[in-house]
Amino acid sequence: MSEELLYYTDYLELDKILGSQHPKSNEQTDEMLFIIIHQAYELWFKMVIHELDQVRRIFDTDNVLDNAGEMSIAVQKLKRVVKIFEVVNRQVDILESMTPMDFLEFRDLLVPSSGFQSLQFRIIEAKLGLKMDQRYKSNYYKNTRPGGFNQRDYDAISSVESEATLKGLVMKWAERTPFFDEALWRDFQSQYPLEEGEQKFWSDYKQIYKNSLSGSVELRQFDELERIFYKEGLGEFSVGAMRAVLFIMMYRNLPIFQQPFDLLSTLIDIDEMLSQFRYKHMLMARRMIGMRSGTGGTSGAGYLEGALRQHYIFKELTEVSTFLVERSHLPSLPKTVKEKTSFNV
Amino acid sequence: MSEELLYYTDYLELDKILGSQHPKSNEQTDEMLFIIIHQAYELWFKMVIHELDQVRRIFDTDNVLDNAGEMSIAVQKLKRVVKIFEVVNRQVDILESMTPMDFLEFRDLLVPSSGFQSLQFRIIEAKLGLKMDQRYKSNYYKNTRPGGFNQRDYDAISSVESEATLKGLVMKWAERTPFFDEALWRDFQSQYPLEEGEQKFWSDYKQIYKNSLSGSVELRQFDELERIFYKEGLGEFSVGAMRAVLFIMMYRNLPIFQQPFDLLSTLIDIDEMLSQFRYKHMLMARRMIGMRSGTGGTSGAGYLEGALRQHYIFKELTEVSTFLVERSHLPSLPKTVKEKTSFNV
Amino acid sequence: MSEELLYYTDYLELDKILGSQHPKSNEQTDEMLFIIIHQAYELWFKMVIHELDQVRRIFDTDNVLDNAGEMSIAVQKLKRVVKIFEVVNRQVDILESMTPMDFLEFRDLLVPSSGFQSLQFRIIEAKLGLKMDQRYKSNYYKNTRPGGFNQRDYDAISSVESEATLKGLVMKWAERTPFFDEALWRDFQSQYPLEEGEQKFWSDYKQIYKNSLSGSVELRQFDELERIFYKEGLGEFSVGAMRAVLFIMMYRNLPIFQQPFDLLSTLIDIDEMLSQFRYKHMLMARRMIGMRSGTGGTSGAGYLEGALRQHYIFKELTEVSTFLVERSHLPSLPKTVKEKTSFNV
Amino acid sequence: MSEELLYYTDYLELDKILGSQHPKSNEQTDEMLFIIIHQAYELWFKMVIHELDQVRRIFDTDNVLDNAGEMSIAVQKLKRVVKIFEVVNRQVDILESMTPMDFLEFRDLLVPSSGFQSLQFRIIEAKLGLKMDQRYKSNYYKNTRPGGFNQRDYDAISSVESEATLKGLVMKWAERTPFFDEALWRDFQSQYPLEEGEQKFWSDYKQIYKNSLSGSVELRQFDELERIFYKEGLGEFSVGAMRAVLFIMMYRNLPIFQQPFDLLSTLIDIDEMLSQFRYKHMLMARRMIGMRSGTGGTSGAGYLEGALRQHYIFKELTEVSTFLVERSHLPSLPKTVKEKTSFNV
Repeated sequence: MSEELLYYTDYLELDKILGSQHPKSNEQTDEMLFIIIHQAYELWFKMVIHELDQVRRIFDTDNVLDNAGEMSIAVQKLKRVVKIFEVVNRQVDILESMTPMDFLEFRDLLVPSSGFQSLQFRIIEAKLGLKMDQRYKSNYYKNTRPGGFNQRDYDAISSVESEATLKGLVMKWAERTPFFDEALWRDFQSQYPLEEGEQKFWSDYKQIYKNSLSGSVELRQFDELERIFYKEGLGEFSVGAMRAVLFIMMYRNLPIFQQPFDLLSTLIDIDEMLSQFRYKHMLMARRMIGMRSGTGGTSGAGYLEGALRQHYIFKELTEVSTFLVERSHLPSLPKTVKEKTSFNV
Repeated sequence: MSEELLYYTDYLELDKILGSQHPKSNEQTDEMLFIIIHQAYELWFKMVIHELDQVRRIFDTDNVLDNAGEMSIAVQKLKRVVKIFEVVNRQVDILESMTPMDFLEFRDLLVPSSGFQSLQFRIIEAKLGLKMDQRYKSNYYKNTRPGGFNQRDYDAISSVESEATLKGLVMKWAERTPFFDEALWRDFQSQYPLEEGEQKFWSDYKQIYKNSLSGSVELRQFDELERIFYKEGLGEFSVGAMRAVLFIMMYRNLPIFQQPFDLLSTLIDIDEMLSQFRYKHMLMARRMIGMRSGTGGTSGAGYLEGALRQHYIFKELTEVSTFLVERSHLPSLPKTVKEKTSFNV
Repeated sequence: MSEELLYYTDYLELDKILGSQHPKSNEQTDEMLFIIIHQAYELWFKMVIHELDQVRRIFDTDNVLDNAGEMSIAVQKLKRVVKIFEVVNRQVDILESMTPMDFLEFRDLLVPSSGFQSLQFRIIEAKLGLKMDQRYKSNYYKNTRPGGFNQRDYDAISSVESEATLKGLVMKWAERTPFFDEALWRDFQSQYPLEEGEQKFWSDYKQIYKNSLSGSVELRQFDELERIFYKEGLGEFSVGAMRAVLFIMMYRNLPIFQQPFDLLSTLIDIDEMLSQFRYKHMLMARRMIGMRSGTGGTSGAGYLEGALRQHYIFKELTEVSTFLVERSHLPSLPKTVKEKTSFNV
Repeated sequence: MSEELLYYTDYLELDKILGSQHPKSNEQTDEMLFIIIHQAYELWFKMVIHELDQVRRIFDTDNVLDNAGEMSIAVQKLKRVVKIFEVVNRQVDILESMTPMDFLEFRDLLVPSSGFQSLQFRIIEAKLGLKMDQRYKSNYYKNTRPGGFNQRDYDAISSVESEATLKGLVMKWAERTPFFDEALWRDFQSQYPLEEGEQKFWSDYKQIYKNSLSGSVELRQFDELERIFYKEGLGEFSVGAMRAVLFIMMYRNLPIFQQPFDLLSTLIDIDEMLSQFRYKHMLMARRMIGMRSGTGGTSGAGYLEGALRQHYIFKELTEVSTFLVERSHLPSLPKTVKEKTSFNV
């Protein structure tokens, strides 16, 4: 066979991939498993970052070109990220085939390194939109601590934060939504007395939502509605962005909202996948090391539980469910809005 | 075809199974999905209870007959429970194909019933070993509250508690372990000065564990060791039971411990599966209803998060990992113990 | 608690669901598992049929209303069918926790009933588009054979065949595609000499595809292209329908094709899911009964292997991959077509 | 942080792992996914080989030391192989997020390399026990063909064949079983007239099996029983080895057979996992390239279907199910055999 033909082993650079496992203990231990599972994680994390970068590029403009299919490409890539995490989360099951006693055989050799130090995982969180000061025990990350990140990596995480995050970009995209231009709503038949200075749809919506509630607990939800969708916004999302998200979720069957609805759902999916990643690791740590501290000097399972509670990224999106009303109560849209959100057929 | 031949539809009583779906809303909604998924849960829960009952029967004697294969049967059945929950936990993914707007279409018709009221799930928890007073918000269960259990079902849960739970039975089985009979350890070569009145193995183990620790954080672990394995036991497990569990985990390759080790691991697996069931439902609830309260009047996602934290059943078993030492530091067992734990070949 | 409040157990009719398991053997056997797993299958099959019926209703008109979101609803429901089969296919893993010896304990009591007789599974196949005369060993189904269907059920399967199948409806929908109207292509810049009487796009495409091939094996593919997309069509799909499918696959990022592309992909997914269902059952049967015949009198694993090979439903769709060309070789579409396939923004 | 502390990135050699992706096309394509998924496969294959080697070492002696826990270790490692393939098989789902059009963008750049050339996968098959002359289209492997293996790799596969395969080792282990020594069966109460020169148990078993059959089809099974368990053996398994396997499957609850039964079941699981790997790849290839030939010059999906049918490794083990009888018909074992298979308690 001639030398120039492409060969599977060379194409995949398997000499490097398969030559990078050097356990510190002897070969009877499960350290090989430990190394390979983490390397497989990191390969997948690289892929996730690759896709997130392409999605961020699509959103990092003043205008996502729906008609050029850009939104559809973005959604496809984010769904792939979900698929990847479905596999990554299953990998934990393999690790659980190692018993606590088996782990003890080489555990001390790893100190103070630990999975906490996965630069790529931190970068995924950061690119999605998690900030350092929102992180649980953010001082753990510092290079002044054995088990923290070295300076170069710490800087790498920080510099990602200064870039546009996916969350920020999606927020801006939502904010730019053109569907509330006053001109489009001229023919809108308001069912309720209009509030001064308020857009007709949103003036009505407040009443519709109020009518859907009952009891004092739920009236607190009405105050929340006012705060989030009329006055302050929520978290990093402005009033305008929150309104766009709510509108898309309610009218998701309008052609132009189908992909955006898929986008929002997929971002929530990604958040769930990361949460499950953390949750399964917490269960695994608890089982493997009980109440010991982690090799990286964190509090082990306790640390993971804290991160779990605090590292949700797209909570503004899940929150919207609280403020939906039944489809049959939705106002019917004016012809001008319908046209704007439809196919040209 | 003659009437007497067994027919698939009749054997499975499909007229009843497939005739038990009566949505309260119209057929355009996703209520059919909602009904069927819960019915599928309940079918599987019935199966889980069926297996747990058989396992409890095996353990509910003064002597589990290892040589009659009883332990092996028990483990096989518990592993099946794990497999069932793997499927049950995946079912949540189907439910997530229903959007929050779709759920709103029939949600109000369900009040005040809710998944909280799954009698069989509560019975599974109770048969495993969860007590009413360990349950998060145990007053929710009462029949004085719409959304609680009716009196008959509340009594059913309570009466299970008064039976022997799997956890209690496993504790007693561990306690009965015959491997620390003084006679078996006569030839044991103690490496450390013996503590008065203590069994040789455990007298040594204290030193071995101490030597494996370093730093003040870890010394607190030593105090825990003393408390749990020498003085008080842990939770519902006596000192004797905790010792047996530790011993099995460390010497799991001895023939007679292989099935018991599998048993303990599988109980931890079951706990993890139930936790993941709760966790996935919490994520799902958060996504579906945001911060609203549940149809059953609980605080919704908030309630589920509380139950998640508090309803671990076999925490005594996971805790043991904290107190293992490296295999190479384990004392070698006397011939008399080895014989007692080996095959007759 | 007042009697009128809706109660979980009543809403789900659990007295019937959980009161429909009556094993023919004693309770030590695994027959309970066998019953419950099949009942869970049938519950899910009912759900699948429910969704397929709604999708067929959407397609069973002269005009699927893209602007009313109908296509989007259809795709959502078909994706749910995929999710359901992902769970259903995992159920087989639970069944494998029963060993061949355990099955033998009650197997003979089931003769001549068998999973072959699942009416709902046959109806799913039929509603998707599988015809009786395309079925492997179609004589097995007859009521003249113990293990076949009784007359009522056989008639039920046959009557579904006479309804519009999803495959037939999708074919007609594809055939109706308005995007090749001569008027839309007036400005199309043909790159190759036009073939007489042929639409400009398709006249060019033939050349483009030819140029993408090399070698004699591949030239046979060119003959196939001509046969399928220019002369005869493929299977039940006419030339016009095949062209529409190819066009959608190639220009899937055009807004109006995003949902249709998802539709086609999801139909292929469903086919794969059914195949995997059959494949896993074949592996399971082989393991459970070896080379014995099935309880229903079929040849067991051998029968399942035949059905596996022969029961693909949407092979016309997977086949299209053979005839795609690289995106960079695609002709750019005239403005008139682009407008027709875009949003109105 | 001092330089000498172990750092996650260095320990895992991530500079090499994450620096080994060099797509031949531009970064807009899905080639990065294609590279990473195959690299992840290869990492896991390395792990599988690592475990298989350790298992083979355990079996490659005249005496597997049950009392030293060796069998238990072997089973644990093989179960891990199953877990790994569960994840590996799910990876295919990620690949399906690439559409046929997306694959076309870089497909031609890969010719003539292909997944067929995965040396490690071939080595896994070989170490398990697949011989070159049993492989479908074994001439494909030759280095005289572009798309075949280079000489070094072809030799590597061949040299594995000359080593002891896991299948061969398991066969020999089964053959060595000491449980049919005439001395142990002296007290066996034969229920049927003894056949001359035959061991009592097996003389009886023939009758018991015959009585369990009915009809002419099943009588052919009796001829098979005679051939396989009394005269010739099956495939690579001798009569003695087949008898041991049958005996273990029937009396799996005897303590000394619990791990061996698990061993045999897990080998069948591994075979199923490999089959599902091939099956999912066949479905994927069919979807991705339709009827085109593969990049490596094979017939694509057609090749994969052939390999699927022909590459089962442990068919001798699945076949045993055909020859089991109901537990209640099993002869009760003499005290001498029971002792020999029990714990020493």
